[in-house]
Amino acid sequence: MSVVVQNIPRADKAIVDAFADYGVATVHEAQGRVGLLASYMRPIYRPAHISGSAVTCEVAPGDNWMIHVAVEQCQPGDILVVTPTSPCEDGYFGDLLAASLMSRGVRGLIMNAGVRDAAVLTEMKFPVWSKAIFAQGTVKETIANVNTPIVCAGQLIYPGDVIVADDDGVVCVRRKDAAGVLKKSQEREAKEVKTREILSSGQLGLDYYGFRDRLAAKGLKYVDYEGD
Amino acid sequence: MSVVVQNIPRADKAIVDAFADYGVATVHEAQGRVGLLASYMRPIYRPAHISGSAVTCEVAPGDNWMIHVAVEQCQPGDILVVTPTSPCEDGYFGDLLAASLMSRGVRGLIMNAGVRDAAVLTEMKFPVWSKAIFAQGTVKETIANVNTPIVCAGQLIYPGDVIVADDDGVVCVRRKDAAGVLKKSQEREAKEVKTREILSSGQLGLDYYGFRDRLAAKGLKYVDYEGD
Amino acid sequence: MSVVVQNIPRADKAIVDAFADYGVATVHEAQGRVGLLASYMRPIYRPAHISGSAVTCEVAPGDNWMIHVAVEQCQPGDILVVTPTSPCEDGYFGDLLAASLMSRGVRGLIMNAGVRDAAVLTEMKFPVWSKAIFAQGTVKETIANVNTPIVCAGQLIYPGDVIVADDDGVVCVRRKDAAGVLKKSQEREAKEVKTREILSSGQLGLDYYGFRDRLAAKGLKYVDYEGD
Amino acid sequence: MSVVVQNIPRADKAIVDAFADYGVATVHEAQGRVGLLASYMRPIYRPAHISGSAVTCEVAPGDNWMIHVAVEQCQPGDILVVTPTSPCEDGYFGDLLAASLMSRGVRGLIMNAGVRDAAVLTEMKFPVWSKAIFAQGTVKETIANVNTPIVCAGQLIYPGDVIVADDDGVVCVRRKDAAGVLKKSQEREAKEVKTREILSSGQLGLDYYGFRDRLAAKGLKYVDYEGD
Amino acid sequence: MSVVVQNIPRADKAIVDAFADYGVATVHEAQGRVGLLASYMRPIYRPAHISGSAVTCEVAPGDNWMIHVAVEQCQPGDILVVTPTSPCEDGYFGDLLAASLMSRGVRGLIMNAGVRDAAVLTEMKFPVWSKAIFAQGTVKETIANVNTPIVCAGQLIYPGDVIVADDDGVVCVRRKDAAGVLKKSQEREAKEVKTREILSSGQLGLDYYGFRDRLAAKGLKYVDYEGD
Amino acid sequence: MSVVVQNIPRADKAIVDAFADYGVATVHEAQGRVGLLASYMRPIYRPAHISGSAVTCEVAPGDNWMIHVAVEQCQPGDILVVTPTSPCEDGYFGDLLAASLMSRGVRGLIMNAGVRDAAVLTEMKFPVWSKAIFAQGTVKETIANVNTPIVCAGQLIYPGDVIVADDDGVVCVRRKDAAGVLKKSQEREAKEVKTREILSSGQLGLDYYGFRDRLAAKGLKYVDYEGD
Repeated sequence: MSVVVQNIPRADKAIVDAFADYGVATVHEAQGRVGLLASYMRPIYRPAHISGSAVTCEVAPGDNWMIHVAVEQCQPGDILVVTPTSPCEDGYFGDLLAASLMSRGVRGLIMNAGVRDAAVLTEMKFPVWSKAIFAQGTVKETIANVNTPIVCAGQLIYPGDVIVADDDGVVCVRRKDAAGVLKKSQEREAKEVKTREILSSGQLGLDYYGFRDRLAAKGLKYVDYEGD
Repeated sequence: MSVVVQNIPRADKAIVDAFADYGVATVHEAQGRVGLLASYMRPIYRPAHISGSAVTCEVAPGDNWMIHVAVEQCQPGDILVVTPTSPCEDGYFGDLLAASLMSRGVRGLIMNAGVRDAAVLTEMKFPVWSKAIFAQGTVKETIANVNTPIVCAGQLIYPGDVIVADDDGVVCVRRKDAAGVLKKSQEREAKEVKTREILSSGQLGLDYYGFRDRLAAKGLKYVDYEGD
Repeated sequence: MSVVVQNIPRADKAIVDAFADYGVATVHEAQGRVGLLASYMRPIYRPAHISGSAVTCEVAPGDNWMIHVAVEQCQPGDILVVTPTSPCEDGYFGDLLAASLMSRGVRGLIMNAGVRDAAVLTEMKFPVWSKAIFAQGTVKETIANVNTPIVCAGQLIYPGDVIVADDDGVVCVRRKDAAGVLKKSQEREAKEVKTREILSSGQLGLDYYGFRDRLAAKGLKYVDYEGD
Repeated sequence: MSVVVQNIPRADKAIVDAFADYGVATVHEAQGRVGLLASYMRPIYRPAHISGSAVTCEVAPGDNWMIHVAVEQCQPGDILVVTPTSPCEDGYFGDLLAASLMSRGVRGLIMNAGVRDAAVLTEMKFPVWSKAIFAQGTVKETIANVNTPIVCAGQLIYPGDVIVADDDGVVCVRRKDAAGVLKKSQEREAKEVKTREILSSGQLGLDYYGFRDRLAAKGLKYVDYEGD
Repeated sequence: MSVVVQNIPRADKAIVDAFADYGVATVHEAQGRVGLLASYMRPIYRPAHISGSAVTCEVAPGDNWMIHVAVEQCQPGDILVVTPTSPCEDGYFGDLLAASLMSRGVRGLIMNAGVRDAAVLTEMKFPVWSKAIFAQGTVKETIANVNTPIVCAGQLIYPGDVIVADDDGVVCVRRKDAAGVLKKSQEREAKEVKTREILSSGQLGLDYYGFRDRLAAKGLKYVDYEGD
Repeated sequence: MSVVVQNIPRADKAIVDAFADYGVATVHEAQGRVGLLASYMRPIYRPAHISGSAVTCEVAPGDNWMIHVAVEQCQPGDILVVTPTSPCEDGYFGDLLAASLMSRGVRGLIMNAGVRDAAVLTEMKFPVWSKAIFAQGTVKETIANVNTPIVCAGQLIYPGDVIVADDDGVVCVRRKDAAGVLKKSQEREAKEVKTREILSSGQLGLDYYGFRDRLAAKGLKYVDYEGD
C-alpha cells in the first residue's frame, strides 16, 4: 500500500526563511557536519540559493506519476524533494510541473534523478538540484509514497525538515533542530566574517588558529629545498 | 576497408530548420520517446539550441584524422556527428576544425568523446555537445568510415537524419519521419503552452489530467500526519 | 615523517607569466603532448585562465590541515596544487583559505578533491580547478608533505613546475623546460592563427595539410550513397 | 560529541538465524521492495549468504579507529555495518579486525568503503560486502558514533535491524518487522518453488500469470517478420 | 504502439553453433573489429562461452513485463538480448525466468541492466552477461517491443543476429554475414595457434611480425639507461 | 621522439623474489603508505600474488604496438607495466603476448587499460591486473616510450622498481628502497601474526592497542540504548 501523508508539520516560517542567508557549508558545519546530500546533486543553473520545508516524494524508476500527487501537498515556502525507488536519470520533471509548483509558491526542487526543459526552467528562475539533465520521458503507471521519510542522495529526509540548497549542494536540517541550527549558523557566519577579514589582511591561519605547536608535536619538519 | 559515402540525402531544408523551434524533450516525446542520445552528452556552453542534418563520422580512439575527411562532406545546415570506435575522452576537436566547419555553414558538433579550446569555441558561438572537455591531443594515423550508420552515445544515427540538440541533450529523427515528427512536435508544443497556462493558474495536474480515480484504483491512500 | 620543503626554486617570473597567454591545449601540444592532468579536473567557473609556479601539498582524506601549512610557503605568482593521499571529494577549501591565498598573491588552486563556497569563490574571482564542488567539511588531525613531488590527477608535479590552467583543464611544465616550451607555444600559436585564417576562408584541411594521398594509401575509398 | 550506544535490542535469535535460508531478493520482495542497499555493495567472494543483527558504525574518511570501538559492541550472531561520513574507498578492514570479529562470533561485515587482505579474508571464510577492495591504509585520529542510525549505501539502518546478504547484495529488515517479513519470505519461497517447477516444465509465464489480456488491453500487437 | 515480431529468421543452426568454438576477441577481429557490446557487460560467472541467435527485447526502466512476452518468441539455440529504454540497473531477471528459458532450450541472457538470484543462476549453469547484479525488483505495467532492432550496450542488434559471448564480453554478427565471419574466425584461430607456438618458443613479435623497420622509420630510438 | 631505454638496473633478485611472501597491504604499510596504484586495478583471476622488476611501457590510446617493443626488454623475473597516454579500456593484450612474455620468464602484467582472452590467460596462469576485460582490438600505428618513468593508475613508476601485486591491488617500491622495505615488511608481518593470534583469542583491540584513554580524551561517550 502506498500513502500520501497530509498536513505535515513544518518549522516556523521565519526560521525556515532565515536559513536562506546562510550557505550550505555553513549550515552543515553548524549542525556538526551531518545532513548533506551526495555531491552529485548539482544546481541546473548557478548561482542559486534557497531554503524551505521539505515535501518528500518517492517515484518508481522511469515513472513520474507521484510528482503530480505531491504537488497538491505543497504550500508556499516548500521545497519538493523527490527520489526514485531505484537509481534512474530520466527527465522526471519539466516546465509544466515547475509552473504548477511556482503557482503554489514552492521555492525549488531537489530531484535525485534527471530533469528536462533545463533552458526553460532557467528562464523561469525555478531552481533545481538534480543528478542529471536528460530529456528522457517517463510514464504514469506506478504509485509510491508522499510525505513519508525517504533516503535521498544518501541522506535521510523527513517531511517538514528544513532544506537549504546553494552552489555547494543540499543540506537537510531536522525540523525540531531548526531554531538551534539557525542560531549556530548565524554565530558561525559572524565568526567567519571576522576570520576572513584577518586572513585577508595577511595573517596566516597557522598563527591565527594556533596550529604550529600541534603540527610540531605530530612530527612535522621544515627542511630546505635541496637540488638544482 | 573504410569508406566515405558521398551525396547523402537530407531532409527538406524547411523541415530541418523548423525543428530548431522545438526542444529536444518535445521532439523526443513527439516521436514516441525514441532517438535520444545518452545523458552524458552535454553542451559545452548554455543555452544552445540547433537543428540540422547529420553527417556521421567514425574515428579511432585518440585519432581525429577522419574528422578532416568528414568536413569535406558537410554542407550548410549540417551537424557533424562523431563517435570513436571504442570509448575515448581525448580532445578530438578544437577551434581550427570549428573554423573549417563554420566556413561551410555547419551548425554544430555532436562529439561522443572530448573537445578542446572550449573557451574559444564559446566565443566563436560554435555549439558543441560532447562527453568531455579535455586538452588531450590526438594523432592522425588510422582511417574509418564517414557517412555510414553509427551508434553514437547509445543511439543509432544514419547520415541525413535530423539532429536536434539543446540544453536537455541530443535527439535524432529519421530523415523520412522528419515531416511527421515535426508536425507532432508542433501539436505537442501548442498543447503544452495551453497546459502550462492552466497549471500556472493553479489548477492541479491531478484534476487537469484526471488522475484521481486511477490513483485510487491502484490503491493510493490519503492519511493524516501522525507524530509530534 | 612528514616534511615541509622551503625555498623551492621557481621558473623566471617573466616566463611563468607569459604562459597565461597560451591555452592549455597549445602548451600541451608544444611540449609533445605530456603533462596534462586528468579530464575530471574542471574549473568551478568559466572562463578562467591562469599560469603560475606550483606549490605542492598532500592532504589526508577528509583532512585539510596541511593546506594551512602550505599557504605559508606560497608567494605572489604561485598556484597551490593539492592532492589527497587517497581519493576523496570532500570540500577541503573555501572562502577563508581563498582569502589567505589572495592576500599572498596566489593566482589559483588546483584541487584533486572537492571545494566549497563555490558562489563566494566565484564572486572573489579566485579561480579553482577541482574534482568536485561539495560542502562536506574536513578535520585537522593528520600531517603530510608540502613541496615534495606529487602525483595529482594522474600527473607527476614537482614544486616549482609551471602550471597553466584554462577551460580545457590543467597542464604542468617542468621548471627547466619552461623557457623552451614557452617558445614553442608562441610558435605554435602563431602558426595556428594563420591556419585558422586559412581554414576560415574555406580551404579544406584535407588540402591544406596534404592528407589526400596518405588517406588513399591507407585504403580510404569514396563511394556514392546508395539507397532511397 | 560522539557516542557509543550500548545494549541495543536485537530481534529474536531464531528469527534472525532463519533469514539465512532466504535470498536477498526474496526478503526484499517479501517486505514490499524496500530496504535494499545500493548495487555497488558486492561480496568479496562468492557464494556467500548470511543473516544477523546490525551493529552500526560510522567512520571518518580514511580513518578506521571507530571500528575498533564497534568490535566491543558485537555479540555472536551480529553483522557489523560500517559507513564513512563521506565517500571513501580506503581499505578500512583487514584480517586482524576479522580475527577479532570472528572471535566474538560475528557473522560478517557490510563495509560502505574498501577492505583489504581479501585473499586472507577469503581463506578465513569471513564474508564481506564492500564498495571496493583496496590496500590503502587508514589512520586512527577521529571519533564518530557507534550504534546510532546510519545511512549506508543509500539505506537507513538502525542498530539491531536484521541484515541479510548474499550474492545479490544486502537488504535490511526492521527489527520489529522481522517476524512478519520472515513469514512472508517463507510463503514467497514456497510459492516460487512451485512456480519454478511449472515454468521449468515449459508452461509460459504469459499463461501462468495470465498476462495476455492485460497486454492486449495495453495495445500490444503481434506481427509477422517482414524482410528478407 | 508496441509490437512483438514473430517468426524471425535465424542463421543456419550449424553455423550458429560453430561460433561457440571461437572467442569473442577472435570473432570481433574476424569481422573487422565491429559488433562489440560495451565493456561493462560482464558474465555473472566465469568461465562462460556461448553462441546463439538473438531474440531482442525492450523493457521500460524498472519494468520486466516484456521479458515474459519475449520468452514465448524463443526457440532452442536462442540467446535473449534485453535492453531498457533508459539506463537502469534493477534486477529484471532471476531464477524463474531462467527456468522458463532453459525449458525452451535458450542458451543464455544478455541483459543491459541488472539480474538477481545470481547464486541460483550459477548453480543452474544458466549463463548471463549483465551490467549489474542487484536484488531490486521490477513492476509489470509498461509494454515495449520484442524482436525489433535495438541498441544494446552501444551495439545495434537485429533479431536473428548471431551473438557470441565469453569472458571477454559479447559480440554481435549480422545473420547474413555469419557464414563468412565464421570462416574468417576459423582461419584467424588457425593462424593464432601457429603464432602462439612460435611466440611461446621465444621468437620475438618484433621479428615475427617484421616491425623493426617500420618502428625505426617512425623515429623510435634505442638508448642505454643513464643514471645510478 | 620516442625512446626505448635498454639495460635498466634492477633490484637484487633475492630481494625482488622475497617480496612475493608479503601482501600488498603489508608492503604498502611498511613503506609508509605510499606507492599504491588506484583501486580500479584488479586481478583478472583470484587468488594471484607476484613480485618482480618493472619494465615500463607507454602506449597510445587504442594502439598496442609498443607492447611488442617492450617484450624484448623483459627478462626473467620482470613484470610488464603498461599505461596508455590517455585513458582507454581497449583490449591491448591477449594470449599471444602472454605467450611471448611467459617464454621470457615474465611474471605478470600490470595493464592500466583493458586485456582480452581472459579465459585463456586464466588457464595459462598468467596473472594480470587491469582496468577492464574487453575484447576491443587495437592498431599498431603510433610509437611511445619504453622504460621511461610513467604514471600508471595514479602512481609514479620507474623502470626497475619492484612491483608487488595481489588480490588487494598493486604497490610499487623504489629499487633503492627495496631492501629496507622488505625488512620492514618482514617485521610488520611477524608482528601481525602475533597480533592476530591475540585478537583471535578474544582480546579487544581497544585494550591491546591501548585506545581507551585517547578515545575518552577525544570526547567519546558510552550511553545506554533508549527506546523500545
